[in-house]
Order: sequence, then C-alpha cells, then structure tokens
Amino acid sequence: MHKTDKGAKLMEKVVSLCKRRGFIYQSSEIYGGLANSWDYGPLGVELKQNVKAAWWKAVVHGRDDMTGLDSGIIMHPDIWKASGHTENFYDILVDCKKCKGRFREDHLNGGKCPNCGASDFTKGRAFNLMFKTHFGAVEDDASVAYLRPETAQGIFVQFKNVLDATNLKLPFGIAQIGKAFRNEVTAGNFTFRMREFEQMEIEYFTRPEDAEPWHKRWIDDRLNWYYSLGMKRENLRLREHGRNELAHYAQGCSDIEYNFPFGWAELEGIANRTDFDLKQHSKFSGKDLQYQDKVTNEKFFPYVIEPSGGVDRAALAFLVDAYHEEEVEGRTRVVLRLSKPLAPIKVAVLPLLKSNHEIVTLSKKIKNDLQRYFTCMYNDTAAIGKLYRRQDEVGTFYCVTVDVQSLEDKQVTVRERDTMAQERVPLDNLKTYLIEKLST
Amino acid sequence: MHKTDKGAKLMEKVVSLCKRRGFIYQSSEIYGGLANSWDYGPLGVELKQNVKAAWWKAVVHGRDDMTGLDSGIIMHPDIWKASGHTENFYDILVDCKKCKGRFREDHLNGGKCPNCGASDFTKGRAFNLMFKTHFGAVEDDASVAYLRPETAQGIFVQFKNVLDATNLKLPFGIAQIGKAFRNEVTAGNFTFRMREFEQMEIEYFTRPEDAEPWHKRWIDDRLNWYYSLGMKRENLRLREHGRNELAHYAQGCSDIEYNFPFGWAELEGIANRTDFDLKQHSKFSGKDLQYQDKVTNEKFFPYVIEPSGGVDRAALAFLVDAYHEEEVEGRTRVVLRLSKPLAPIKVAVLPLLKSNHEIVTLSKKIKNDLQRYFTCMYNDTAAIGKLYRRQDEVGTFYCVTVDVQSLEDKQVTVRERDTMAQERVPLDNLKTYLIEKLST
Repeated sequence: MHKTDKGAKLMEKVVSLCKRRGFIYQSSEIYGGLANSWDYGPLGVELKQNVKAAWWKAVVHGRDDMTGLDSGIIMHPDIWKASGHTENFYDILVDCKKCKGRFREDHLNGGKCPNCGASDFTKGRAFNLMFKTHFGAVEDDASVAYLRPETAQGIFVQFKNVLDATNLKLPFGIAQIGKAFRNEVTAGNFTFRMREFEQMEIEYFTRPEDAEPWHKRWIDDRLNWYYSLGMKRENLRLREHGRNELAHYAQGCSDIEYNFPFGWAELEGIANRTDFDLKQHSKFSGKDLQYQDKVTNEKFFPYVIEPSGGVDRAALAFLVDAYHEEEVEGRTRVVLRLSKPLAPIKVAVLPLLKSNHEIVTLSKKIKNDLQRYFTCMYNDTAAIGKLYRRQDEVGTFYCVTVDVQSLEDKQVTVRERDTMAQERVPLDNLKTYLIEKLST
Repeated sequence: MHKTDKGAKLMEKVVSLCKRRGFIYQSSEIYGGLANSWDYGPLGVELKQNVKAAWWKAVVHGRDDMTGLDSGIIMHPDIWKASGHTENFYDILVDCKKCKGRFREDHLNGGKCPNCGASDFTKGRAFNLMFKTHFGAVEDDASVAYLRPETAQGIFVQFKNVLDATNLKLPFGIAQIGKAFRNEVTAGNFTFRMREFEQMEIEYFTRPEDAEPWHKRWIDDRLNWYYSLGMKRENLRLREHGRNELAHYAQGCSDIEYNFPFGWAELEGIANRTDFDLKQHSKFSGKDLQYQDKVTNEKFFPYVIEPSGGVDRAALAFLVDAYHEEEVEGRTRVVLRLSKPLAPIKVAVLPLLKSNHEIVTLSKKIKNDLQRYFTCMYNDTAAIGKLYRRQDEVGTFYCVTVDVQSLEDKQVTVRERDTMAQERVPLDNLKTYLIEKLST
C-alpha cells in the first residue's frame, strides 16, 4: 500500500497520534468499525473547522467575485439524470467465483483475485456509486432519492436563484462546503478515501471564451492557498489529466497532488466543465438557465471552471505535512507544525506548580480572559516539560506558563512552539502580545 | 396553519424576503421542488454559519468543561438498535381507502381524511422515520445502513475515545453540529420541519446525583444564549414535557419554545437522558462505557443532560424575530434587526456617485481593506437611498458611503442600521472605528 517503508512508518505515527490525541477516530469503533468511515475527535473537529474557515475566507469573503451557497444532500432525483450520474457514475465490479469476494475489475492484478488468487470471475457489472434511499412514506420507484456524490449540482440548479438575488456579473463564482457520499469499494488509506466525505467546491462561471485563462488562474490561486497555509512546496505538484481519464463532463482537468506517505495523490481537481451542466439542467428541467448580459441583452450558457477540493484530504495532508520529529536534549520531540490559522489550540495556559492555589487561580483566570479571542486550553496534569511536549505534539502555537515569580512581578513566560524560545511578558500586555503574534 | 392572519402575513413577508434576497430557496426548485427541503442562498449560508459559530463559541470555546466532536451521518446499524431507534422511532400511518392518501394517524381531524373527507382508513402501520440505504457493494440485509436521525449517538459511541484523549473529568460535555435526517410525513412550515436538517447538540455527562441541578443550569444557559443574540424575551418561553410525551430514553425534558408566526413551537429541547444510552451501547457493543473516577477508582455510568437545538429553526426564529417594519418619510422601511454576530454582512461600502471613477476606486479600495476583518460588500447599482434600504432589509450593520467630499477631506459617512444615525469618520480611523463598534 505504501510507497516506501519510511512512508508506511510516517503514516503509522500520524494515525496513532490522531487516535491518541483525539484528532481522528474510526467510525463506530466499539461496534467493530465501519469501512472507510472516520469521525473527528475534539482536536480534529477544530482542525477541520479551521481548514473550512480558511477556505471560505480566501474564496468567498476575501474576493469580490464570489458568493456562497448551502444546498441539500438529498435533492430531486432528476438532477442526477441530468448530470449524468445515474447513467455514468459507476465502477465495474466482478465476483470471484471461488471465494465470492467482490472487486473492481480495474483493480485485479493480472486477472487474479486479490483475496484467494483464483482467476475465475463473473462478468463485470456496473455498480452505481450513489447511495440510494427513499423519500416520503412509500418505498417505490417514484420515491427513490440519492445522497449527492458531489456538492456541485446543488450550485447549478440554484444558479438562477443566486443570479436573481445578487448583483453578480460574469465572471463570478459560487462556493459551497458540504458532505458528499460515494459507495466506494476501494480501500481507503485512512481518511484519504471515505464513503462519507466533505467537499469544498467552487463553480466559477465565465464567458466561454474566457474559460481557459480562468482555468489557469484558478489552478494558481488554489495552489497558492495550500502554500499560504504552510504546506511544503516540494510536497505539492500539478498533474494534468490525460484525455482518457477526463470525467464525462470535462474538457480539461488539472489535479493538485500531495506527496502522501502512500504516494502522490489528488488533493483537489480543477476542471473545465464547459457549459455541460447548465445545458443539461435546462434541458431536463425545462427552465432556461442561460445568463443574460444586462447591457447587451445577449443570452448564453456560461462555461464553468470547478476547483473541487476535499476537506478531509486537505486536513490529512496538513497533518502529515506538519508532522515533525527532532532531537532535543537527547529525546525525540514531536511537533505538529501547523500554521497559525490551522492550529486547533492557539494558546495553552500551564501552571508551573499545580499545588500552588494562587498559581492555579491566576492560570485559570488568564485562560478565561484569553479564550474570548482564541481557542485556549488549561492543563495542569503533569510537570511542565511533559506539558510542553503534549502541546507541541498537537500544534499549540504558544504556551503561557505561570510560576511563583508571576505572582510577584505580574509577568508570565510565553513559549513559542517551533523555536521553543521563551519570553517574559507582562500580564497587562499578554492579550495584545498574543493577538499581534497570532495575526501575522 | 397559522395562528392568526397577522402571523400568516408576517410569515409570507419573511418567506418572500428570503427568496428575493438569497437567504433561503426551495430545494430543487427548477425540478418542481422537493417536499420539506430547503437550500440556503448567499446570505442564508452566512447567517447559518454565524448561528453555528456563535453556538460553538458559547458552548465549546467559551467554557472549561466542554469539547467538540464531528461524527458521521452514516454509522454502524447496530447503533440504532442499541439506541432504540430501529424499534421505537416511528409514526403510525394510515391510508385513506377512498383517495389513497397517506397520513399520520394522530393528525386525522375527528377521524376524517384531510384530503377528501372520507372516514374509511386502513389499519395503522408503523413507519420508521429513519432513511435507509445500503453500504458496500451488495444490497442485502447485512449491508443496511441508516442516515442518523440525531447527532447524539455519535457522541455516545465515541465517549470512551474522547475520555482517553482528553483530561476531562465529570461533569463535562461533548458538543456536535451536523446534519440529521427524518423521513417526516408532516407538513413543514417553511424551514421549521425539514427532512434534512442540522442539529447542534450537547451531551453533558454528570454524576447521577448531579443530573437534576445541571438540567436546570443548562435550561438557563441555553435560554440566555438566545437572549444574548438579541432574541426578544416575550417571544421565548419554557415548556416542560408531560410524562406521556417524553421520549423513550428521557426522565424529563423542557423545551425552549419560540413564538413563531404559526404558533409557539420547539426551538430546542433540554432532556435528562439518564444513563440510558451509555448503558445500551455497553450492552450492545460489549464494551465497557463506564466512567472511572481517577481518584476513588469508582466506576459508574454517568447521567446525561442533552440540550438539543436545531440550526435551521434557530436561523428561522432569528430571521422572524429580527423582521421589522417602520414608517420613514412616508415610506415603509424594512429592517432586519439581526444582532452583530449574526448579521450576514457587517459593512457595505457604497459610492455616492457611480459615474465618478475616483469615488468608485476609493470605495473598492476601502471594501478590500475592510474585508480582512469582517464580511463586506460593495454595491453601486442604485441611488444611495435605495442602496441603504437594500442593506437594511438584509440586516447589514453599517453602511460606509464615499462621496466627492471624501476625496478631499479623506472622511467617509458611516450610517448605523437601526438608528440611521450618520457619522463622519476619517479614513485612517475607519478600520479601528468599525472593529470597536462591531465587537461590543
């Protein structure tokens, strides 16, 4: 599974840290788990929220040409007919006649069963990747509904409503974050391929003749977003899709790939979807989804550039990328070098002496003051050296230590995660000091 | 449906505003819509995010005894056996023999069909409210899975993992925000009752003997949260459940009800779930989910207080509560008096003269500077009076107007939404001025 032994070892360490410190747990673990399904623990949910907030800030609030949307997971089933998912979104599966295992035909190694080694299979059958359910009180064909396999279609079907409610003119984009579901048979590589996962997608509408330059710009913009959050440049690369691997709707697609411990793999795809979707929905719904230029009155179907990223994949890549070990005083220090916007805890307040009531009281007071501005935690369950290591391991940016001296000189020690440099800061300045440090 | 004509009229206005200005759209509208399903538009998604962020800040980041979690929508099916949902979570439905309509038995008026008036029905049948799907590549009984009808169970089954990864000691709570699904037959009252909806739930674990006082405290805390975000006191009330309406797991429950235009209805329920869930999951999973006191080594099942609110209901209540009409200079001014944390747009930058290139350039520059700190928009599509009204209607807190004078004296006009008071503010101070105003 892993490219190298080193990769396998790194992955093992990250997975173990995730469980031990509450980033990621196996779904339904006490019931034996659920395949390719994971839950986010106390620190994981913060990291994931931070990834999503950083994305929203960059692609919606930080721009003039973007707006947001939040559509449903279950939508009208005709949407998936129009989009082509009912017909085209499937894997070809075969059953091994010997062991009865079921596999993706394109995953058989030299025609042999990965399970028992036999080479006698049933004929391949198309297996649609959409989860099916029934809507309403009668389970019949008319009530079939699907869990969306992508958030994109929710944007296309609300395109006209968004246009009507805003002053947006081409080129403009609509962004959405939300869950999507794919009934994958493939093995998962931790949270890299989950059946239930979260997407952050942009549909960026342009004049047909502007699609290509905008495609290029979005590839740059999205790559820069990962850089801006501290991802190492050597761990990111672009890969252009070959003609034969393009989705049925795409004219071109470039993937941003990350150098995961198990090999290079897709973080985000930036596709040129052309006018396929808007045209299809116009046809299937009977509603005109063309864009009308308010000056020239010209009507046409815009082209669409789609930067489509995975929240879970991004979170995993940020975790792996940030994982760092170094020797400090003869011991291994594990540091999660997450960037400031992504670190789940910004500041930990630690009393040097747990037995000193005044120190504890002051520490708790400091924590309570600071938590209005950033995520903080208080911890007194070990000696200071151990407390530092525990915070390093989860990426906490600053540790504030309260000691006996603090009670007299009203100063505390602020320790920076990466350099371990310590500085004495007057309590009166602490808030401003940290706000400034954390906002740069 | 509505309590009064006045209520019906208010609701109509809110629904119309929501569509027109991009708060809420019917799901799959171009395909004829999907029953009891709604999407959030450009302003709706911001409002909803603000509601969730305010909740998370209050119940997780702002406290010392809480942490977060994000579990999956699809979990192991045995979880719903343990929780009792497979057996007990249903409506009794009957079919009208004349018109073939299907209805909830407890919704028949005097035994008459609400559709055709006939009174001959089939025998009532239990209809489980959980959406069913299949997981994996084989559609058989073994692969049945459900969309969660509540987020709570994800917390219970990860209780031990969270305990192991944190230093939490009783009493403490775990918070979660996420989608839940209920295949309701009931009519919806706009976004009040949706088949796909979002919950914000807390499971607060206490010693059994502390459950009652904590139940009381949480009722107060949650009520105060709605007050703190500006909800009118006269529109909120508490209602204690009668013995006969308690859920199968609850020992007591109080609802926070809001005075919706269609009548008083539940915003949030605060229940005492006792030790029911942890005990059930211990029994069904074979894993010991007892809490162990680290000092006394005593082991026991904690009790659980559950404040369980709906994000969509809260958003709707905030919208309705904020809707305000007043006469200004002989015309009706509509103002959405959303509180500062909830307003989708904090600042709008408006050029007084669209034709003046310098004014437009300066306005756009101001918008670009400010959007690093809060959600901003730029708008030049109408005369200033109309632009103000448009911002009032969606709750924008401040309008910054750039005029010819601004180019010379480097000052702009800042107009406050509720009072319409205008103040001249130097450009150099604008950022600080707005940050201060918006943070109080």
